[in-house]
Amino acid sequence: VKFHATILIELKDGILDPQGRAVEGVLKGLGYRVEGVRVGRVLEMELEADSETQAKETALAIAGALANPVMEVYSLEALKPLQEVL
Amino acid sequence: VKFHATILIELKDGILDPQGRAVEGVLKGLGYRVEGVRVGRVLEMELEADSETQAKETALAIAGALANPVMEVYSLEALKPLQEVL
Repeated sequence: VKFHATILIELKDGILDPQGRAVEGVLKGLGYRVEGVRVGRVLEMELEADSETQAKETALAIAGALANPVMEVYSLEALKPLQEVL
Repeated sequence: VKFHATILIELKDGILDPQGRAVEGVLKGLGYRVEGVRVGRVLEMELEADSETQAKETALAIAGALANPVMEVYSLEALKPLQEVL
């Protein structure tokens, strides 16, 4: 079965985020009342697995492989059988 | 009221994604059966608004300001009053 996975990889709370700070400055310049802007990565992919449980394990293993364990945290934002996505 | 917003900004389907292709190559090299890997940005932020409706409007306006309308699409992944996040 094919699954569609959405993975978020974000900087840990304590880690300085210069890109987020720059975006926050831009948004404040535009007049928006925002704080604590953080920029991370989102990965979308299709993966082949025998069951939803296996798909979840695979997606989390992939997220773990792509994240930097010292500076980043990852989460599985969504996991759906592919026909539901189409 | 303060809200926590999670915004996704991703390349449109037809747009070539070299970073996604590179990540896909790495994952396949590690033995994962993945396809169609796409890499985008996730933004987390706190914003001040009078109501959830206003917060949603503001978050979508911010997403629209940060996305490139020619190449990217944006979506509001999550919006929660701040106390629920803490």
